[in-house]
Amino acid sequence: MKATYAIGIDVGGTNTKFGIVDKKGKILVQDRIKTNAQDSVDGFIEDLAAKLEPMIKQYGGIENFVGIGMGAPNANYYAGTIEYAANLKWKGIIPMAELLKARFGLTTKMTNDANAAAVGEMQYGATKGCKNFISITLGTGVGSGIVIDGKIVLGHNGFAGELGHVIVRNNGRLHKGTGLRGSLEAYASATGVRDTTIEMLQDYPEKPSILRSYSMDELTSEAVFKCAEQGDELANEVFKFTGTILGEALATFILFSAPEVIVLFGGLTKAGDLLLQPTKQAMEENLLQVFKNKVRIELSDLNEADAAILGASALVW
Amino acid sequence: MKATYAIGIDVGGTNTKFGIVDKKGKILVQDRIKTNAQDSVDGFIEDLAAKLEPMIKQYGGIENFVGIGMGAPNANYYAGTIEYAANLKWKGIIPMAELLKARFGLTTKMTNDANAAAVGEMQYGATKGCKNFISITLGTGVGSGIVIDGKIVLGHNGFAGELGHVIVRNNGRLHKGTGLRGSLEAYASATGVRDTTIEMLQDYPEKPSILRSYSMDELTSEAVFKCAEQGDELANEVFKFTGTILGEALATFILFSAPEVIVLFGGLTKAGDLLLQPTKQAMEENLLQVFKNKVRIELSDLNEADAAILGASALVW
Repeated sequence: MKATYAIGIDVGGTNTKFGIVDKKGKILVQDRIKTNAQDSVDGFIEDLAAKLEPMIKQYGGIENFVGIGMGAPNANYYAGTIEYAANLKWKGIIPMAELLKARFGLTTKMTNDANAAAVGEMQYGATKGCKNFISITLGTGVGSGIVIDGKIVLGHNGFAGELGHVIVRNNGRLHKGTGLRGSLEAYASATGVRDTTIEMLQDYPEKPSILRSYSMDELTSEAVFKCAEQGDELANEVFKFTGTILGEALATFILFSAPEVIVLFGGLTKAGDLLLQPTKQAMEENLLQVFKNKVRIELSDLNEADAAILGASALVW
Repeated sequence: MKATYAIGIDVGGTNTKFGIVDKKGKILVQDRIKTNAQDSVDGFIEDLAAKLEPMIKQYGGIENFVGIGMGAPNANYYAGTIEYAANLKWKGIIPMAELLKARFGLTTKMTNDANAAAVGEMQYGATKGCKNFISITLGTGVGSGIVIDGKIVLGHNGFAGELGHVIVRNNGRLHKGTGLRGSLEAYASATGVRDTTIEMLQDYPEKPSILRSYSMDELTSEAVFKCAEQGDELANEVFKFTGTILGEALATFILFSAPEVIVLFGGLTKAGDLLLQPTKQAMEENLLQVFKNKVRIELSDLNEADAAILGASALVW
């Protein structure tokens, strides 16, 4: 009997989403677990198995499956490993493909979570048919996938396209996961928005803001977005600052691969024009003449989880 | 009769070098002219013709030639144009391939000067056989060529790989040619070294330096290098500062394409370890764990002019 399904797994800094996908790219069933609920990777795999095994049974058992595709931070396509991922509890080098193969009996292929999202985007989303684009995921962290001439850039060691760690402010804010100072992820992520908010609340004590009454736990990027929508000036400043830094970084990215489009994904993009308007402005201001008004920024029209699950599953077809 | 020679032309910010190349990649004859001696591109082409036509005759006339390959700043491979080049006198969009075709009667292909050097490097130099590398030219300006899976990255509009214009210091030094602030080229070029020296002489009036007795005309990057070699402390500081900025930028570049090697070309590399030591240190300090101690920096073993002429000529074979 010929295998008719693939499993796509997207490991994010907060949630791990997974689903069963058919050959046409339809997600038949999906679910999620907390990525860092367990201290060990073995615990993670057991959490995953508790939900994934019933799904596999529901679709006829492993003989109906071609394999598992996984997108994960710092995943190495060539080695099937996750290496020194800043936002995960598992430190060092994790032989994830091997562990999943042992647990589920299915061949596993891996790539960077953002690369997986870019593949999903290219096959099913806004950039369908586009040969040169960069996708940026603005979530707990900042991920990226670079597509050149229709192919994901993997690089010599499989770790290409880690644009979240580009330094945008020399000697800037410390990024705890990597020890780098002033990286894009320290600013243009959900965590970055929260940190910027706390900094601004401290730096401008005279400026009134609803956010001053929020507890530290309540100060999430979503909360800041809601306050900004309601006209809170400081919350608006936070998004202006974040977008400016993001736009400057995009101008740099364009110098590399001269993409046609930059596609933005992830929770932070829910802020819409609050984020996009300063992003576009800063990007254009920092572009070389030959690129001015030529590169589009688009929000993904795929559900982020769907894009990543689809892209991951596409690794094993 | 079958064409047996190609012409390779390398347009630099200061000199334009050109030569006749055979199929094996041997430069049979070469010469140079000043790029900006004439105000118009027509004047440039006449200067070129005055030296190139006798060479073509010497090798049997145009019927012996397959075509002209040219590497030039801001050259567009797809359109055969030079567009808004910051370091050239000719402004706007120059239809260079068409102009050369009309003057010499030979098909002309163009690419970014740094891309041409990278092609030369890949075919004949230090990275022979290497599939993933970035070459950086540190001359009057800073150029770059990115090779991924054995192919030069051209991008959607043919202008990919303009890494000299990456912003390395937010709101930093003004780059006159582009109007950008804090770009790599404003620091890690011959012009940048000169500007840094002048700044340091002004900022640290108490620090003794042989360079204080130099006239503005004498303050070249070569002069600063010679003083540094002789132990001048301020001159050494200049190279340390320059290398630090370059190294930080290289760490960013690695995040994109995960190259095996970065090859450095150009006049500034004559400073050797004075520049390389701080470059390597800053690069490693700013790298993600997965890249630490894994990416080599090499100086090109090709003569820079040769690499660019060879690479340009390779466009037309």
